Amino acid sequence: MLPRGRPRALGAALLLLLLLVVGFFLFGRDPEYGLGTTATLDGDPYGSRNRSTSSLQLLLPPKCEVMLHVAIVCAGYNSSREIITLMKSVLFYRKNPLHLHLITDAVARNILETLFRTWMVPAVVVSFYDAEELKPLVSWIPNKHYSGLYGLMKLVLPSVLPLSLARVIVLDTDVTFSSDIMELWALFGHFSGVILLWLDRLQQIGWEQMWKLTAKRELLTLTATSLADQDIFNAVIKEHPELVHPLPCVWNVQLSDHTLAERCYLEAADLKVIHWNSPKKLRVKNKHAEFFRDLHLTFLGFDGKLLCRELFGCPNQFPPGAEQLQQALAQLDEEEPCFEFRQQQLTVHRVHITFLSHQPPPPRPHDVTLVAQLSMDRLQMLEALCRHWRGPMSLALYLTDAEAQQFLRFVETSPVLSARKDVAYHVVYRDGPLYPVNQLRNVALAQALTPYVFLSDIDFLPAYSLYDYLRASIEQLALGRRQRKAALVVPAFETLHYRFSFPNSKAELLTLLDAGSLHTFRYHEWPQGHASTDYTRWREAQAPYQVQWSADYEPYVVVPRDCPRYDPRFVGFGWNKVAHIIELDAQEYEFLVLPEAFSIHLPHAPSLDISRFRSSPTYRDCLQALKEEFHQDLSRRYGSAALKYLTALQQSRSRA
Amino acid sequence: MLPRGRPRALGAALLLLLLLVVGFFLFGRDPEYGLGTTATLDGDPYGSRNRSTSSLQLLLPPKCEVMLHVAIVCAGYNSSREIITLMKSVLFYRKNPLHLHLITDAVARNILETLFRTWMVPAVVVSFYDAEELKPLVSWIPNKHYSGLYGLMKLVLPSVLPLSLARVIVLDTDVTFSSDIMELWALFGHFSGVILLWLDRLQQIGWEQMWKLTAKRELLTLTATSLADQDIFNAVIKEHPELVHPLPCVWNVQLSDHTLAERCYLEAADLKVIHWNSPKKLRVKNKHAEFFRDLHLTFLGFDGKLLCRELFGCPNQFPPGAEQLQQALAQLDEEEPCFEFRQQQLTVHRVHITFLSHQPPPPRPHDVTLVAQLSMDRLQMLEALCRHWRGPMSLALYLTDAEAQQFLRFVETSPVLSARKDVAYHVVYRDGPLYPVNQLRNVALAQALTPYVFLSDIDFLPAYSLYDYLRASIEQLALGRRQRKAALVVPAFETLHYRFSFPNSKAELLTLLDAGSLHTFRYHEWPQGHASTDYTRWREAQAPYQVQWSADYEPYVVVPRDCPRYDPRFVGFGWNKVAHIIELDAQEYEFLVLPEAFSIHLPHAPSLDISRFRSSPTYRDCLQALKEEFHQDLSRRYGSAALKYLTALQQSRSRA
Repeated sequence: MLPRGRPRALGAALLLLLLLVVGFFLFGRDPEYGLGTTATLDGDPYGSRNRSTSSLQLLLPPKCEVMLHVAIVCAGYNSSREIITLMKSVLFYRKNPLHLHLITDAVARNILETLFRTWMVPAVVVSFYDAEELKPLVSWIPNKHYSGLYGLMKLVLPSVLPLSLARVIVLDTDVTFSSDIMELWALFGHFSGVILLWLDRLQQIGWEQMWKLTAKRELLTLTATSLADQDIFNAVIKEHPELVHPLPCVWNVQLSDHTLAERCYLEAADLKVIHWNSPKKLRVKNKHAEFFRDLHLTFLGFDGKLLCRELFGCPNQFPPGAEQLQQALAQLDEEEPCFEFRQQQLTVHRVHITFLSHQPPPPRPHDVTLVAQLSMDRLQMLEALCRHWRGPMSLALYLTDAEAQQFLRFVETSPVLSARKDVAYHVVYRDGPLYPVNQLRNVALAQALTPYVFLSDIDFLPAYSLYDYLRASIEQLALGRRQRKAALVVPAFETLHYRFSFPNSKAELLTLLDAGSLHTFRYHEWPQGHASTDYTRWREAQAPYQVQWSADYEPYVVVPRDCPRYDPRFVGFGWNKVAHIIELDAQEYEFLVLPEAFSIHLPHAPSLDISRFRSSPTYRDCLQALKEEFHQDLSRRYGSAALKYLTALQQSRSRA
Repeated sequence: MLPRGRPRALGAALLLLLLLVVGFFLFGRDPEYGLGTTATLDGDPYGSRNRSTSSLQLLLPPKCEVMLHVAIVCAGYNSSREIITLMKSVLFYRKNPLHLHLITDAVARNILETLFRTWMVPAVVVSFYDAEELKPLVSWIPNKHYSGLYGLMKLVLPSVLPLSLARVIVLDTDVTFSSDIMELWALFGHFSGVILLWLDRLQQIGWEQMWKLTAKRELLTLTATSLADQDIFNAVIKEHPELVHPLPCVWNVQLSDHTLAERCYLEAADLKVIHWNSPKKLRVKNKHAEFFRDLHLTFLGFDGKLLCRELFGCPNQFPPGAEQLQQALAQLDEEEPCFEFRQQQLTVHRVHITFLSHQPPPPRPHDVTLVAQLSMDRLQMLEALCRHWRGPMSLALYLTDAEAQQFLRFVETSPVLSARKDVAYHVVYRDGPLYPVNQLRNVALAQALTPYVFLSDIDFLPAYSLYDYLRASIEQLALGRRQRKAALVVPAFETLHYRFSFPNSKAELLTLLDAGSLHTFRYHEWPQGHASTDYTRWREAQAPYQVQWSADYEPYVVVPRDCPRYDPRFVGFGWNKVAHIIELDAQEYEFLVLPEAFSIHLPHAPSLDISRFRSSPTYRDCLQALKEEFHQDLSRRYGSAALKYLTALQQSRSRA
């Protein structure tokens, strides 16, 4: 029996599956679906358990034909992360097509739409429903905080889900599956007839009136100032105990200090769903806490890519775009020397935008977001970057699922980083051998929310004044008002010393430059990258000055947010920014060097990818092939105007 | 039926479970164990499948009482890695106690004994059997290579396994489970009587004579020059088809280009065991290759720590040491400020010694092994280190399971690294928030196989001549012959430039030093660390000179392999080498500075751990507490001789 009258913490147990439970009641048990093997279970005090593990599987309908419907209410950044771990555990064990019904706020929808679109899990359909529409239906109930309102929405799910939907499993975001969700769905199967009807039936029995009446009556007598959804569920059940059909306890193993759940899960084989009511529980000193924690951690760090497998024996159920992608990948020639490049270019990376809580910047006409990308080995740059740049940032991180969790802990334990709500972190999940540098830049760029962006690199620290100075410059140059397409150039410098005191002004910078402590960026190895910036002129400049494009120019620039994207064909290292600057020039952006702006590159060990691939002749050949393809595309798009880029390329090739 | 007469690649399919299969035959099916639900399976062309998934579970005996026995032949470095992935998949799904019977060569035994001892998986017993003993029994069979001999050993398993062992599942190392191994074991259960006897029965039916006779007959007619184990199994079966009982095909799903297995696994639910016959198969273009690959990759990178869960509802079955460890951990006070330090100190890390193929150095009386430790962010140092140090190395790497796979690929794709067989890499698996620096050093030190060790750090590049020079110095100083306890000091320098040309001689080094391009190590921040080395004297020195210990001295030294271990209480960063040098001094090692030796530290971004913890006052307090405990232990062990270290500590504290 459900634990009526238990304290509220335990009452939460009901929530998970109550709607399902209500469905059960309506028609009672159908003897035709009785279990032939019941005899073997006699004398088992938890007899209901085994039915779901074993015998029920024999009664299941052909799996491909059963689409399982799951509804989840999800709002905000943290729940959007939780739901992914839940989904990983469901996907690991599932063998049926799934239809997710996600009732979300704008934040969660933005995150989850991107995530599922890029995850491309076969045989998973995702529908979104606007939680805003449900708010008026529950907002009359006093409740303590914002998230409480989303909990209450479970009471009114029938009014938002499509009428055609007969059955649905309703889940909290903080549960982890340790079995096939079909076993849960199969519990419907015991009660033929009701299966296809229960959402209707809920309306027939007057569910809406029932819970509202109960809630209002409770409100009259309750001393507490708020009602959570589970309080209302509990109250309804108290009044209408006949509504409840006992669900085997293994379907909602509670993990809390005082739970009586241990009696339930004597056997690990029985655990179906583990319910985390609070993050604290990861440290609970439960006898079997380790089992729970390990299962949860398993899916927390699980590589989501490994869950994109097709269902066996079912017709292909590709998500949008996946079939074309697979065909394109299949057409690649594995023996071709640049195969890895081709494959990497085609790879769609799973993207989790705004992985952490984020406060979008208020709309300001001259505001600038710093845009950059990084991987785990540059995390230690973040604190310094936050000290140097006081404005909004949009950063793409290339991480494994496990690294994303390390990153989360890193930010949580850093006072500097956790204080900053204007930095949006977008996790792009690792896949493939080459670093998808321009795909990462494009993710960060697409998520910048200010009218202007400063396209930087993670190893650069901007001048302390740069954020203010850029906004003032944008305003003074009236970039927004005139239809002037300009890229403001921030001159780049570098230090070769890894202990270094950062200049507070242009004057200090020039002193360090003269003393040989600083250099113009890549002066020794790649002078053409920044030659056009004209550092000699910059020393004396008092006002912005225009410079012309030249071959291999790759300055760091401030441009409007709607600037051209980076060309994603450039994976690995080399030429990725050069191509973007050509694109700006081809679209007639003028390059204006700002006289007081500067940014300094800090030294670091060369990344693994760089060391590995720079030494490979094949790598260089493939890069050359990419450049040529890029130029062919340029000619196609810009015609004779693109001739100068090709000429420059040919000159550089004849020099090489 | 087993695919008799199939080509050899497929014949390998038989191997996996043949001994089990033979067992089946002997008594045939016991009708009392027939399935009550057979009727529901009528008309299913692969009917045998479902029996194992569902109904069989109802027939299983109480799980805690069933110890499953698994035998695996494992030899060499690669198989030792494979077996771990196999074991992870078994452990993930298993719910019963396991007894592993590992028939190993010396290499695999050394690796796997350490691994299982440090893995501490509850309810897993591991027994080792010497494969050498089995060699004479099969070495008369011509076979092409070393590993073939180990394959043949499966023929003679009954002669090495204990007589008391009634049943055993024999597995190849290259299989991955996707279900509970109990389901496989349960297949024994259909044939009561034979269960407890089958190993005996094998002897009764004259298995030994049978296979030998067959093998010899085959050898007479065979055109091939060698016989693999599967050839003999196949031949025996051909002659005695009555020996074979068909095992459901789901128990050995083959993955190869020409397999007919697809008919078998129409349903993913059916897959029990996937058999990888060659690494190439990860790239096989099988219709369901992705499913196979994803499952394999899941366990390849699976965090082994998450598999250390206890079995539910069974009496505790702790491996040696685990219970005491759990008690010690349980006694820690989570609210104590240095809790993380205490916890980290107690953590036993899973260790995989010689993770990659390794050629132990030939015994030479003056040989020196470079000993160091690193994590993923220093991998790019390895190639340079290999160029600078031409002798043996023993390196401990602190990695996650997934990182260990990245590391493997990194070495495989590096011509420099893959050419070096004298570098032993020992993987210590990550666990806990603090870097266990001294535990890592001790792992690397314990695995050094030469009489002397050079205790270095991964960020240092030794002089190109250092390896030869050290060996010559050891010989000249006759360290081995006299009972002289000496620590040879290798003076440490550093460059702050990240582009740097390494000096080829002491003369060149001194020039760079005078030009300010090089510094003595940590001259600005921590001069006391190397002050005793006396760099001024070193400039002019022509012969080794003795120096005295002073507070905070932490030179890089060459010592005999049996030198004191590092104190594992120092986790995180700080004082870890200082304590070791005190220990050497307390044990009356004399410090001899070598006049031509040097090593240079390369700059790098500070590690995450350093940046994070150096800024924390708690961290510094805990480090101070560790120092004090260390000194208390010193006094206990060395009495008044340890007084000078305490005095030095107190002086430094009063200065601070």
